[in-house]
Amino acid sequence: MGNQVKVGICQIRVETDKHTNIVKGQEMIQKAAAAGCRLIVLPEMFNCPYQSELFPVYAETYPGGPTIGMLAETAAREKVILVGGSIPERDENNRIYNTSYIFDESGKLAGRHRKVHLFDVNIKGGTVFQESLTLAAGDKLTLVDAPFATIGVAICYDVRFPEMARAMMLKGAKILVYPAAFGPVTGPLHWELLMRARAMDNQVFVIAAAPARNDMAEYKAYGHSLIVDPWARVLAAADEGETLLMVEIDLDVVDEVREELPVLKHRREGIYPDVNS
Amino acid sequence: MGNQVKVGICQIRVETDKHTNIVKGQEMIQKAAAAGCRLIVLPEMFNCPYQSELFPVYAETYPGGPTIGMLAETAAREKVILVGGSIPERDENNRIYNTSYIFDESGKLAGRHRKVHLFDVNIKGGTVFQESLTLAAGDKLTLVDAPFATIGVAICYDVRFPEMARAMMLKGAKILVYPAAFGPVTGPLHWELLMRARAMDNQVFVIAAAPARNDMAEYKAYGHSLIVDPWARVLAAADEGETLLMVEIDLDVVDEVREELPVLKHRREGIYPDVNS
Repeated sequence: MGNQVKVGICQIRVETDKHTNIVKGQEMIQKAAAAGCRLIVLPEMFNCPYQSELFPVYAETYPGGPTIGMLAETAAREKVILVGGSIPERDENNRIYNTSYIFDESGKLAGRHRKVHLFDVNIKGGTVFQESLTLAAGDKLTLVDAPFATIGVAICYDVRFPEMARAMMLKGAKILVYPAAFGPVTGPLHWELLMRARAMDNQVFVIAAAPARNDMAEYKAYGHSLIVDPWARVLAAADEGETLLMVEIDLDVVDEVREELPVLKHRREGIYPDVNS
Repeated sequence: MGNQVKVGICQIRVETDKHTNIVKGQEMIQKAAAAGCRLIVLPEMFNCPYQSELFPVYAETYPGGPTIGMLAETAAREKVILVGGSIPERDENNRIYNTSYIFDESGKLAGRHRKVHLFDVNIKGGTVFQESLTLAAGDKLTLVDAPFATIGVAICYDVRFPEMARAMMLKGAKILVYPAAFGPVTGPLHWELLMRARAMDNQVFVIAAAPARNDMAEYKAYGHSLIVDPWARVLAAADEGETLLMVEIDLDVVDEVREELPVLKHRREGIYPDVNS
């Protein structure tokens, strides 16, 4: 029996040309839908090389931008829930965000997540990045009600904040979706550990959608898109190449693990009052 | 240079006879101290087989119990910080707790942690346990100031609550110590993942002290004591046999990771107000 949904991740190799990325995204979404996926996820910044100075150049405004238009149309045509990875968004005040547009099966905007935690790090001998050079930060959790489950959406560095995953679960999420582009240092170190930890602690499915590695790019994406179940078992994992990663998930497993290992009932809120202070 | 401290875990195989466990514990602490360890950790319920009905039988009262006396004396004689795993404690109202007594280098009681989250689980075809049959729950975080760092102490199932580790870190902990006895199902599934996740998210050292597997015991401990650094790298790991696990840790690594990957500065408290509600 169960409550099964096939999910797909389009692990796109992002190219310099924006139009190429849009076309490739559309083709991969169509392929995933044809294979039976009802929830399809694209990676972070799938229409734009991951470089701070390019975000304003590739940015789009809602509605009207070509990437956003493709996402809405394809979701409607294929009748799928589409978490459109992320793209640079320009708002009415000319601020740029790292934003995920989420469309439902009729192509209606179901949600929009602006990355809350900007990636400003400086790892010695490794990854140096400063999103805040060109990006503004969002300030909201994003939850979307799909027919099969409530979905929480957050972007990349957001996953490093256990409070945020916790808050999305407490608001009803049974699936957490993270479009994300880890790099060659943080990827091997923490990618799988983070995704499995969020799944384990919150007893949810985690869908982590990464871009494929592009050896010509300045920022070398780690790839390794992942789908993890609420026991923290890896159901499907990609390597670093361009690929479509698909697997059927059974949402009843969320209830199963929460009953057998009832950590969420056992939380004792009074004990940790300072977590947000 | 650095700020180095050698730490040791006594991965004791718990026997039925309480006195045997006390003697074995003392011998292993002495051995670890002789090898230069300044922080020594024993496993959960190291003086008592892990069975609900035995906790009241093996319980001790502070001060006065023989296990507690051994811990205090040995800490003083060896001049070490001693996290005495845990033992069943009987309080003045005849309630029993799963309690960790922590002694400083002069043998003075530096802290006492009563397990906050009781292990009541029922995993199909696997682990079934109900600590609440005989145990009462603690209701406080436990932090101890050692000369080299503030140490947070929690016990086994407590580690499944990310809020609790977060709260200890926010109160200054740079080392989290978990005496713990995972079993043959939850061990392979989540033991290393949990310990590495707490280390990664909070950028602290994690010291996870397990009892060795005893094939004669009703509850088969998983063993696999671990010492993890703030990058979530495993510095030392045991298998399931009785052993002394020792490694030098450099507390400056805490500051290093917090500077290079400043997630703790990047927390945005207003975004997740519901984590405790």
